Amino acid sequence: MRMFCCCTAFLLLILIPTGCEGGNILVFPSEGSHWVNMNILLKPLHSRGHNITVLRPINSWYIKDDSSYNTITVPVENILDQKLLTRLVSEAIQVERGALPLTSFLQKSVGMISLFLDIHKAVANFVSAILDDSDLIRQLKDSKFDLLLADPCSGSGVILAKYLNLPLVYNVRWLIFAEAHFSIAPSPLSYIPVTGTGNTVEMTFFQRVKNIVLHIITQTQNSLAVKLLYQKITDKYFGPGYDFNELMIDADIWLMRVDFVFEYPRPTMPNVVYIGGFQCKPAKPLPQHLEDFVQSSGEHGFILMSLGTFVTELPADITNEIAAAFAKLPQKVIWKYKGSKPATLGNNTLLVDWMPQNDLLGHPKIKLFVAHGGTNGVQEALYHGVPVVGIPVFFDQHDNLLRLKERGGGKILSLATVDKHNNFLKAIEEVLSDPSYRANMQRLSRLHRDKPVMPLDNALFWIEFVMRHKGAAHLKAESYRMPWYSYHSVDVVLFLAGAMLLVLVTTFYLIRCIYTGMCKYKVKRE
Amino acid sequence: MRMFCCCTAFLLLILIPTGCEGGNILVFPSEGSHWVNMNILLKPLHSRGHNITVLRPINSWYIKDDSSYNTITVPVENILDQKLLTRLVSEAIQVERGALPLTSFLQKSVGMISLFLDIHKAVANFVSAILDDSDLIRQLKDSKFDLLLADPCSGSGVILAKYLNLPLVYNVRWLIFAEAHFSIAPSPLSYIPVTGTGNTVEMTFFQRVKNIVLHIITQTQNSLAVKLLYQKITDKYFGPGYDFNELMIDADIWLMRVDFVFEYPRPTMPNVVYIGGFQCKPAKPLPQHLEDFVQSSGEHGFILMSLGTFVTELPADITNEIAAAFAKLPQKVIWKYKGSKPATLGNNTLLVDWMPQNDLLGHPKIKLFVAHGGTNGVQEALYHGVPVVGIPVFFDQHDNLLRLKERGGGKILSLATVDKHNNFLKAIEEVLSDPSYRANMQRLSRLHRDKPVMPLDNALFWIEFVMRHKGAAHLKAESYRMPWYSYHSVDVVLFLAGAMLLVLVTTFYLIRCIYTGMCKYKVKRE
Repeated sequence: MRMFCCCTAFLLLILIPTGCEGGNILVFPSEGSHWVNMNILLKPLHSRGHNITVLRPINSWYIKDDSSYNTITVPVENILDQKLLTRLVSEAIQVERGALPLTSFLQKSVGMISLFLDIHKAVANFVSAILDDSDLIRQLKDSKFDLLLADPCSGSGVILAKYLNLPLVYNVRWLIFAEAHFSIAPSPLSYIPVTGTGNTVEMTFFQRVKNIVLHIITQTQNSLAVKLLYQKITDKYFGPGYDFNELMIDADIWLMRVDFVFEYPRPTMPNVVYIGGFQCKPAKPLPQHLEDFVQSSGEHGFILMSLGTFVTELPADITNEIAAAFAKLPQKVIWKYKGSKPATLGNNTLLVDWMPQNDLLGHPKIKLFVAHGGTNGVQEALYHGVPVVGIPVFFDQHDNLLRLKERGGGKILSLATVDKHNNFLKAIEEVLSDPSYRANMQRLSRLHRDKPVMPLDNALFWIEFVMRHKGAAHLKAESYRMPWYSYHSVDVVLFLAGAMLLVLVTTFYLIRCIYTGMCKYKVKRE
Repeated sequence: MRMFCCCTAFLLLILIPTGCEGGNILVFPSEGSHWVNMNILLKPLHSRGHNITVLRPINSWYIKDDSSYNTITVPVENILDQKLLTRLVSEAIQVERGALPLTSFLQKSVGMISLFLDIHKAVANFVSAILDDSDLIRQLKDSKFDLLLADPCSGSGVILAKYLNLPLVYNVRWLIFAEAHFSIAPSPLSYIPVTGTGNTVEMTFFQRVKNIVLHIITQTQNSLAVKLLYQKITDKYFGPGYDFNELMIDADIWLMRVDFVFEYPRPTMPNVVYIGGFQCKPAKPLPQHLEDFVQSSGEHGFILMSLGTFVTELPADITNEIAAAFAKLPQKVIWKYKGSKPATLGNNTLLVDWMPQNDLLGHPKIKLFVAHGGTNGVQEALYHGVPVVGIPVFFDQHDNLLRLKERGGGKILSLATVDKHNNFLKAIEEVLSDPSYRANMQRLSRLHRDKPVMPLDNALFWIEFVMRHKGAAHLKAESYRMPWYSYHSVDVVLFLAGAMLLVLVTTFYLIRCIYTGMCKYKVKRE
């Protein structure tokens, strides 16, 4: 094909309508990185003239009451904070490094589930406190919100939306413990990898076995959280006859934080809108000291390393190994790091508390991103076309990185062996020297950016769509209200099989009857 | 919610990039209304600078070789023409009117299937003739096309695309005999109505039985066409090991000619792009004589009647009844009609050979559309928000109209009873006098038009996307390559059940063994 201009043919202009009054949006809180993701939507909604009200627990870790939104502080404590997360991360690192005997491993695994349940319990208490506070409920009803925006990683937002009878939009990747597609769209486990299995879209027989077993475990955890917490609140405030799982699926629009350059192709539904990479934007100029540092790398360029917001510290042997490896490279390195300075740190490595990650990833001199594999970091690497060496710590991070590795855009190192046999240095050098990693990431970047509507614009459009039309009922399949045997047509298949059997048996007896009759007639005649 | 401006917030500007060379598109032919739909895409593609080459049979009904595209005429005859279609329509009308005894009905039904197979045979011969013509194949290969654009209502386009190794985009609603979603997306028959059943998204038990039975019949017809025709060509030109059904599903992008204001919500796939209503556009001013006629209707407004391009004539008793009913109305009527003038025609009714349907449907004085229920007419009524009285003739027309009726936008009359008991007049008067019909259609129109990208722009974007990236492999699930028992995890479930059984049996025997051993030990001690 002859060349197309890269500017392509489409340009989307977003005009803020003058003289239009904005909508009125209620936001159900979510903590940590979930709030970061929610805030990416709230900022442009706020500047487009919408009124944003955020509910927050009294000691919210991330949601401050001096933000530019209206905040309503509920006197209930949030338990998810930096301390708890640091504990979780450090336990996950111990598990990943295989440093635990089996009994401790099992103990930690059970402890982690119980801890997750405690986090859900705190969010459940939070919504209960809101529903029990008649003044607050009156205030919320009087505010005449157009929409509730929630992240369904907890099940409380949907309960409040239902109670206030508000249209509901999800900013979503997880529904309680499971990837959200598994709740809304048919998801054949034969080719859709379950998070945590390390499977890809192509599985061997035993990988498919693992896929199904882990799916059963995840769904059991989900059922446990629903049964112990959310169904109880549903029963208390709505009376009998309301199934929490049905409420949960009944959202108008699901803004899904993936796209199909990152995610493997899978069935979807009309009310799922893909906004993966919605936080990505072209790089802005760097602060002068960073620009100077980066420029000093010359033709070798620089490496960026960040293990995300929550992994503040790794064990010292690992950080020393990483620092020593960096010191051997001709590249410069910017490393987001909060611990004590590694003894082996080279002159080419700059430790920073915070950095403008998007602007650094979009800098022309960047060569490599060393990352933990959080969805946002991976999407940003995809957007800017930067190859990745990943050191996954927990949850979906290995699966996220696998999606890059499978497409030739990076390598994955295990925490268990990252500090052994020069593994870290070898991986870095391979990705830096083999041009295919960069070429593949650049190709993925071109695919990711080539959309008729940019992900953030798409998210804003559908939020405003739901406000304009008071929901999106025409996009919602209501099949989840059917009993499972009807949904899967088990009743109809049994009926048809029965009917066929009846016809066969009747025909058989009829033929036998006629035959017997004829024989008798023959005998009689003889 | 406070009011939003209707101009909404989004404006899409399509800029034809200057200095960009266009792509090179090969179009596999489809006849009649399918060509009309294809041409809606080809015109803007052509004016955006793409080179369009259309393959056509020597006596093509619709594709003329004096068109503005390059045409390659293949010396093979097309059998689908106005004469054949008139025969089909007239037989369908006889069936619809219940005017046939059972034996004739069955005869006609079998005849119709055999006729459809003949039409497919002609298209299959057409592609065979292309593949057998080595000069033509060389010419096609030398042309270095970027893309093959086909309507998969026949299976020949995909065979040519595979032979030339070209990316493939479908402009699609039907895949051979079946609605296209059934081939590409999981389609639970418990809530997805099969065309021809007259079912909606909510079905009783016996409607679900009917749904499954008709699905089996449709799939059997499809298998017949594949086995008798397309698989044979596949075997001949690609050798063994190629399954035609797999090739058919392997298209890069499926531009689906519905949207979810028209269609019921159902599972979909990442490479399905919804372009329903892509032919709709704001009304242009009418020719003077029509504008004068329409204006003469005063406050009563006017009614538009069209039974589409192919239903040229209805039985005289029906047309007389319709004409007499129209004559009793205060509205003016524009009736697209080619037969002899009905005896009962009133002065308020203008018969026309052709009319600018989109401009009339978008005229402020229109009150009602009397239509046969073709997809395009229904989508245009939705776009302009005009209520409909439908008289379906055959195929999907009843199902299309049902989607409006269910949403309160119109009424359906049966050909069997349209001329009895003043049914036609009563239906027209009801829809004219009850404002809910118009209000519902206006609501649907608002939903239909409120999209971040207009359907035609979306179609053009994705066609150009496939050309830019030489396909859209990252959006295609390849699960259809799995054997059915793996796709549905039957093998894994059996394995897990077997493993559980083994564990249970082993445990049982172990316990029994220990118990027996203990008993023996006890006896011994005693």
